[in-house]
Amino acid sequence: MTAFIAEELKDDLRIKWNRIKDELVKKGMDACLLTVDVNLYYTTGRVFSGYLYLPADGEPWFFVKRPNGLEGDRVVYIRKPEDMPDIFAEQGIPMPQSLLLEADELTYNEYIRLQKVFQPRETDNATALMRMLRRIKTPWEIERFRLSAQRHEATYREIPACFRPGMTDLEFQFEIEKQMRVHGSIGLFRAFGANMDIFMGSILAGENAETPSPFDFALGGGGMDSSCPLGANGTPLKAGTAIMVDMAGNYTAYITDMTRVFSVGKLPDKAYRAHQVALTIQQEVTNVARPGAACADLYRIAADIAKREGLEANFMGTRQQAKFVGHGIGLQINELPVLTPRSKEELLPNMVFALEPKFVIPGVGAVGVENSFLVTETGVEKLTRFEESIIPLDE
Amino acid sequence: MTAFIAEELKDDLRIKWNRIKDELVKKGMDACLLTVDVNLYYTTGRVFSGYLYLPADGEPWFFVKRPNGLEGDRVVYIRKPEDMPDIFAEQGIPMPQSLLLEADELTYNEYIRLQKVFQPRETDNATALMRMLRRIKTPWEIERFRLSAQRHEATYREIPACFRPGMTDLEFQFEIEKQMRVHGSIGLFRAFGANMDIFMGSILAGENAETPSPFDFALGGGGMDSSCPLGANGTPLKAGTAIMVDMAGNYTAYITDMTRVFSVGKLPDKAYRAHQVALTIQQEVTNVARPGAACADLYRIAADIAKREGLEANFMGTRQQAKFVGHGIGLQINELPVLTPRSKEELLPNMVFALEPKFVIPGVGAVGVENSFLVTETGVEKLTRFEESIIPLDE
Repeated sequence: MTAFIAEELKDDLRIKWNRIKDELVKKGMDACLLTVDVNLYYTTGRVFSGYLYLPADGEPWFFVKRPNGLEGDRVVYIRKPEDMPDIFAEQGIPMPQSLLLEADELTYNEYIRLQKVFQPRETDNATALMRMLRRIKTPWEIERFRLSAQRHEATYREIPACFRPGMTDLEFQFEIEKQMRVHGSIGLFRAFGANMDIFMGSILAGENAETPSPFDFALGGGGMDSSCPLGANGTPLKAGTAIMVDMAGNYTAYITDMTRVFSVGKLPDKAYRAHQVALTIQQEVTNVARPGAACADLYRIAADIAKREGLEANFMGTRQQAKFVGHGIGLQINELPVLTPRSKEELLPNMVFALEPKFVIPGVGAVGVENSFLVTETGVEKLTRFEESIIPLDE
Repeated sequence: MTAFIAEELKDDLRIKWNRIKDELVKKGMDACLLTVDVNLYYTTGRVFSGYLYLPADGEPWFFVKRPNGLEGDRVVYIRKPEDMPDIFAEQGIPMPQSLLLEADELTYNEYIRLQKVFQPRETDNATALMRMLRRIKTPWEIERFRLSAQRHEATYREIPACFRPGMTDLEFQFEIEKQMRVHGSIGLFRAFGANMDIFMGSILAGENAETPSPFDFALGGGGMDSSCPLGANGTPLKAGTAIMVDMAGNYTAYITDMTRVFSVGKLPDKAYRAHQVALTIQQEVTNVARPGAACADLYRIAADIAKREGLEANFMGTRQQAKFVGHGIGLQINELPVLTPRSKEELLPNMVFALEPKFVIPGVGAVGVENSFLVTETGVEKLTRFEESIIPLDE
């Protein structure tokens, strides 16, 4: 290892490095170079500005631009990526003939620049490799999820006390955000891909639950401002409104995902019935979710129940419907696998995913449930435990 | 224009489109294609998933993936970018022979995909063009900055009431964040470039002000978690501590930047003296800041004063020193120009920039000031107005 890496991470990082190296050997590639925040955190336990260079047959090198003061073997400070080839020569590191770069995360100009620096005969996609490997969580990562889940649950227990009659969805959200921070939320909420703007999660109430958003989250909402059109929009929380709370579980770098529904006064019967159908979907999907289960089948079970219950037009939205019912979680909220009809993936042990069957009821809001599940050897374990019925708020 | 664009934005967007088209003509390029969130907001007044195609000699086309329901002339729904050439053919839009793409924002794979879709003979960098144009703010944008500044000031007026003796920097920050949201902060805080992770701004107190961060912000701090190593880290706010509050002005999509310093009890004399030097730097720099002033000269004025006053080793950090004293602001916190020794830029009318002379005092914290300035025809106008001396908090 190297000095700047925390003692408690050494075993965990060794597992991760070995998995990457095994894949490099399988692909016949010489090395991978990582620089985006989540991949550096994944492989070193911290975010820095610089590069991790991991060869298939050697120890990793840490090329650091900032912060000052990281110390240890194979830590080399650089000013710019063009400094690396000279260091390779000095240190006797062979230049890679084939190199993985983060092709779905690096900008075009950064990628071209790194290609020019290393001039490998062949490049391949480190983003695809890392997303594939990051699906399978390590024991240390699973403990981090458990800690996020505990804090997530503790925050949700405070939600009823955040409500005051006459509030808007935004006012309610601000109180919940405060509770999140007090319970340890690190604030930052990471998603993979462009156009996934979100702040700390989403609250949807009343008609706003139908509003389509540009983003690839399960539901939409108009948001506070057209520069971030998602989630709460100032909807008054009046009697007969369902409030879906899907606030982030970013209490460690490993994000849990949990949605619960609250009501102001009595909701129309259709809302309670749809909520019950969502709980049935959760039950039926988790009954068969285990290593080997096809993600596409899990989606189909959910969609079939929605259809059988006559709620197809409300399932995962109305005016715009999401075509997935769950997704991997981790350092980003949208990791692999995705529970979608097009998926070719199967569940594997130590995957962690969110399952979120939801229905939009026009004029009322959204109902349903979301939990984070760990895939065990024989089934799934629910990580996020909190009352799942619709929780009435004091009026 | 087109139907989905808000009436109040039509004049503003026409100005922006014409500026882009003028530059395309100057460069001899046929068109530009924009897809990243800030550029879509800049040119259409909203974020959507899709593309704005703006030819040098015609009206823009809006290729939308999501949300459903955007309406108007030249709005065409697509499923994927590969759908565009057929639509070009149907609609009689000539395919571009030369095309600007966002080379510093699109991922490598997205860029390559769009190149394949359009197969232009020549591509150039839309990121560079847009960042250059976005420096010069329109009248509508300047009004948005004024609104952000008002709300930013209103939040800062609440800061003393957020303090309670015995708090940590994080507990203090959570209270301020709540006030930000209540005063209209949209939460999301956008920066340009990789490895610029930040959440709602930064608070630095005590020894934590010296901690180097990986990011390209003015100062550092260790942060709550190694996945986001910046800002407050749980430092107790004990007597003799300076607290630098640099929380985001994200009250509209146009971000103002403002830093103020608070004290618990009496600070060492050196802190008050350094603070006064920062105010002198602000005065001297703004005395000469006007259209035509070189950004490198503005930096040098600041650095020279710091040196003359014997504070060179504290200027913009200690263990790691930032090599700029100001930066353009807008839809992102780090726009052009940058007030740095290497800059070749001059101030121009209607630029908006933050000036942030700061000193780190080991063991005490950081002192100094930051304000947002509009470049007028003859000088600069301060947008963020609030008490600039060190503000004592009740113990």
